[in-house]
Amino acid sequence: MEKIKITFPDGNGKEFESGVTALQIAQSISHRLADDALAAEINGEVKELSSPITGDSSIKFYTFEDKQGKEVYWHSTSHLMAHAILSLYPEAKFGVGPAIENGFYYDIDINEQLSEETLAVIENKMLEIAKEDAPFVRCELSKSDAVKLFTEKKDNYKLEIIDGLNEEAEKISIYKEGNFTDLCVGPHLPSTGKIKFIKLLTVSGSYWRGDEKNKQLQRIYGISFPKKKLLEDYLTMLEEAKKRDHRKLGKQLDLFSLHDEAGAGLVYWHPKGARVRVEIEDFWRKAHLDNGYEILYTPHMGKSWLWETSGHLGFYKDSMYAGMKVDDLDYYIKPMNCPFHIMIYESQLRSYRDLPLRWAELGTVYRYEKSGVLHGLLRVRGFTQDDAHIFCTPEQMEDEIIEVVRFAQYMWTSFGFEKLTYYVSTKPAKAVGENVVVGDDLMWDKATSYLKSALEKMNLAYEIDEGGGAFYGPKIDIKINDALGREWQMSTIQFDFNLPERFNMSYIGEDGKEHRPYMVHRALLGSLERFFGVLIEHYGGAFPLWLAPVQVAVIPVSQNFVEYSKEVAAALKKAGLRVELDERNEKIGYKIRDWETQKAPYMLILGEKEKTAGNITVRQHKIGDVGSMDLKEFIDKLTLEIRDKTIIK
Amino acid sequence: MEKIKITFPDGNGKEFESGVTALQIAQSISHRLADDALAAEINGEVKELSSPITGDSSIKFYTFEDKQGKEVYWHSTSHLMAHAILSLYPEAKFGVGPAIENGFYYDIDINEQLSEETLAVIENKMLEIAKEDAPFVRCELSKSDAVKLFTEKKDNYKLEIIDGLNEEAEKISIYKEGNFTDLCVGPHLPSTGKIKFIKLLTVSGSYWRGDEKNKQLQRIYGISFPKKKLLEDYLTMLEEAKKRDHRKLGKQLDLFSLHDEAGAGLVYWHPKGARVRVEIEDFWRKAHLDNGYEILYTPHMGKSWLWETSGHLGFYKDSMYAGMKVDDLDYYIKPMNCPFHIMIYESQLRSYRDLPLRWAELGTVYRYEKSGVLHGLLRVRGFTQDDAHIFCTPEQMEDEIIEVVRFAQYMWTSFGFEKLTYYVSTKPAKAVGENVVVGDDLMWDKATSYLKSALEKMNLAYEIDEGGGAFYGPKIDIKINDALGREWQMSTIQFDFNLPERFNMSYIGEDGKEHRPYMVHRALLGSLERFFGVLIEHYGGAFPLWLAPVQVAVIPVSQNFVEYSKEVAAALKKAGLRVELDERNEKIGYKIRDWETQKAPYMLILGEKEKTAGNITVRQHKIGDVGSMDLKEFIDKLTLEIRDKTIIK
Repeated sequence: MEKIKITFPDGNGKEFESGVTALQIAQSISHRLADDALAAEINGEVKELSSPITGDSSIKFYTFEDKQGKEVYWHSTSHLMAHAILSLYPEAKFGVGPAIENGFYYDIDINEQLSEETLAVIENKMLEIAKEDAPFVRCELSKSDAVKLFTEKKDNYKLEIIDGLNEEAEKISIYKEGNFTDLCVGPHLPSTGKIKFIKLLTVSGSYWRGDEKNKQLQRIYGISFPKKKLLEDYLTMLEEAKKRDHRKLGKQLDLFSLHDEAGAGLVYWHPKGARVRVEIEDFWRKAHLDNGYEILYTPHMGKSWLWETSGHLGFYKDSMYAGMKVDDLDYYIKPMNCPFHIMIYESQLRSYRDLPLRWAELGTVYRYEKSGVLHGLLRVRGFTQDDAHIFCTPEQMEDEIIEVVRFAQYMWTSFGFEKLTYYVSTKPAKAVGENVVVGDDLMWDKATSYLKSALEKMNLAYEIDEGGGAFYGPKIDIKINDALGREWQMSTIQFDFNLPERFNMSYIGEDGKEHRPYMVHRALLGSLERFFGVLIEHYGGAFPLWLAPVQVAVIPVSQNFVEYSKEVAAALKKAGLRVELDERNEKIGYKIRDWETQKAPYMLILGEKEKTAGNITVRQHKIGDVGSMDLKEFIDKLTLEIRDKTIIK
Repeated sequence: MEKIKITFPDGNGKEFESGVTALQIAQSISHRLADDALAAEINGEVKELSSPITGDSSIKFYTFEDKQGKEVYWHSTSHLMAHAILSLYPEAKFGVGPAIENGFYYDIDINEQLSEETLAVIENKMLEIAKEDAPFVRCELSKSDAVKLFTEKKDNYKLEIIDGLNEEAEKISIYKEGNFTDLCVGPHLPSTGKIKFIKLLTVSGSYWRGDEKNKQLQRIYGISFPKKKLLEDYLTMLEEAKKRDHRKLGKQLDLFSLHDEAGAGLVYWHPKGARVRVEIEDFWRKAHLDNGYEILYTPHMGKSWLWETSGHLGFYKDSMYAGMKVDDLDYYIKPMNCPFHIMIYESQLRSYRDLPLRWAELGTVYRYEKSGVLHGLLRVRGFTQDDAHIFCTPEQMEDEIIEVVRFAQYMWTSFGFEKLTYYVSTKPAKAVGENVVVGDDLMWDKATSYLKSALEKMNLAYEIDEGGGAFYGPKIDIKINDALGREWQMSTIQFDFNLPERFNMSYIGEDGKEHRPYMVHRALLGSLERFFGVLIEHYGGAFPLWLAPVQVAVIPVSQNFVEYSKEVAAALKKAGLRVELDERNEKIGYKIRDWETQKAPYMLILGEKEKTAGNITVRQHKIGDVGSMDLKEFIDKLTLEIRDKTIIK
């Protein structure tokens, strides 16, 4: 039999017989690997372990530790769920059932309204089927055979999907496990038995293909794990996340509100939320000025000329608020700040001596999002970007990128986020949606190499998102991890080859000739609204002292000590602290509990003892009573804590 | 003959024969008064000096010192101008010709395009006619006679005005002086001879009745004075104002720009202008937090429900940016912040214990203004109000008003404006435009008395603008005087009886019952854009140190001292100062002149002498060389100057 050479990620190679499966290769290495492996990447493509390999190939195994492994695991679990549902509801029809960031979902069309109880029944059925350990078997059909199969199954949704597939391009694949068949490109787990622990989480309405004109299906979200501990940890995390839900805390701490009747997805910052925002903005502005940025303020709307020139009316119109007429001309609310910054750049002749220009704006933009996807502060229609644009020469570019990454690290550390992950997105194929990719290969290569080499010089590991750039340039995305280990895409650093061309931007070089400047968009926090949402959940509403809307609650033990409390409160205010004096004629226990709920970092409990000694008794949030203290000592302690942006864990 | 009693402003009275004229009364007092008097207020109404008085009356004389005197003077001069034009251009037709804040204008329809030269010819003709000293004679006609008269004169514009007058209400008055007749309600000067010194200033296009669909007339602006010195001072002031024009300085100092092609009346703040704005905003926010305000942030748009509830779609729609559809519903850009603040008020049950609430927002609003009236930063379509709303109980109201006035004084003093003038505007008749006045007399009386008594308790003189309140409540307006003595209407404190009703706002009183809170709108600076325009002109672009975008320019005498200059600049930056190092390889004289033009408060000139001595030589704007100084001494001096917001005069 013919021999083929298999190369492993460490560069070592080994010979196998042609037709060997990835699973067999894994078994040849160790039982453990064969057990843990969920899929394999063969020559750069994720495949089933059962795929036969017939030529020299590179191989990499994926386990549940890997993103790719999880994806296969959860996607296979969605099939298993459909299988279970079909056996419980034989009339069920199915939409789509992908893996998502955490788990999977499947859209189902059945007449019965599913409840938490029915989810438990489905879950049990899934475990029962999983125990049968049926293999996932891939078959490839012609389009006409596929149509025939799903017509027999009366599965209109799948037929609609098949109808949209290109017959010429490839065979249509279906997967079977046991007596269940589904249209799917795969790949899948070797068998259902790999799926050990399952939790179906929620069920909600979802329009077929996201279109409100279509039928509403029921979408079941679930997750699964190979180990019990992993499921338990995940459920604990979910419980904790529920407690920290920024919408719940936003109400409890009186931070913000949204009002559908006055416009969905538009955020109202209440005094306490706005107090945090003022601190964030002050810090942000000072940091930007200290780091060589200049601040701009630009309007929230612009005439069609601006958006035609920028191209937004071509590639972004669906997300823009349109319809306004001023002096019989079309005006649009801005979805982005860039064209306005370019107008300022263009307001005078620029020389290489003026570059780099680093222009930042807390610019509030409005983008249309379908009402169904709006979610608290995390997905809104109006938000304030912490936007900046850098205009520079090619020679300055790499240093600028390094500085932006360093600045992002500084910002995130200041807000208490330690773990950052970096992604470089490279040139897309020919188009992104309807937008043709702009810029020649040379520009893309150069820009992408600036991005990579900046990260490399900083010794930062990064992942490549091949072809994931915008149509106008490559980018670095930075994700942060929150206190619950959840990942959030926040900072972005994007090249733009499009706007400088469209606005015919230039600077006079040292050679006296006109040159096109490089342009980079960057946002560090992303948007203040979404950032605030993440911040609330990260801290569970117990903000570090420097951000807390009320830093110290001064609580007299009884009405006899209101006067003394007033003196103390006044001294704290004079020291620049944000203080509330709780004069309510309530029991001390009640007041302490109330301020605990309000998550005030410090409470001062003042009674006879304190008044006599002329000192204070301090309770610290999460820690409790920390004893008596001199007022000056307390002020010094807090001043330091604010200066250092200390986080109490 | 019958005797009547005339009472003077000092309370003294005197008897005259019935039918006596105001002029005769003035003559009976002194020749000087008879000479200076331009008009008289008889029983509260401004009348000509020649009006016969036939009953007991109070009288007050107005001279050119008084606003009312100036108004009569200038209005009469506009008649004189029309007279002169008619004698030069017999075919001329006339629109309207009122007195304005400074001088007067008249809209003229003639075929010839007027130039500066022709203005001088008209001016001379006016002086020639004035010398004839013809009296202004009032005649009253029936409407039909008036129509007949102006039909003979073929004066279509006046006929259109007459057509709009109410025949029943009163006789139509015309004024004659010499052979010139004009439709006019008066009052006028005794005779043209009172008009001594005249300057016709500009001529510009103006649509009849401000409507672009009508014919464009030529509007001549002019001014006149009884004394030569007054005219000279005024022309000097105009020259100075031209030099300080914020549009010119805005360009010269690179502070801001407007771009008609991207939308007229929308301001782009460049880095240097924005640097000043950051300082203004930081100061404003800190001052508000220190003065018991809380900060809010609210969206820039709202759904029609909000504007229907607030009533803006009724009484303000023409000024609102409309046409946007979101999810098939009408959205509007906000022209005011109030409904958003009320939404936050309404987001929870409020108790008397929560009041007063003082909520401030730097809220950017957009209002439609005709393109013809837009003017630099002073009249724009998008602007950021320094808005606040106070919600309180009736008992708290007066103290709140006092605090707002005191706060306004503090703000204006901080920015270097010393002279404030106060106006109380009282209940309008029944409607303001199409808006029926809301609130009963009791509410108006109470609120107006709070406003008056607040000013009185503060020992502040104020003028009453009778019937000048908004339809929703009485108000205090505060005008400031700038360095050229010009008056600007800036701060406003307005009661609102309308919105609390419309939104059905309430709080639970001490009695456990629901009460309607008082609501006050207030803006101190007015809008940041207009305030910045006034600020630029007030300082002629030479901002006080704490506001200056660049505080210190560090200038090496030659390239040999760049290194030393870098050290100095770094030390200043470390001390928190805004520094620019001028490394340009240019002559020192050129660089100093350039920084003079940029109006940098301080320049440091660094050469051999300074490097050797390790010190600095300081040039101060407006003052020049102030000698050598130790760097630390200089930093201390500037730190103090910033802290104290010192103004160098």
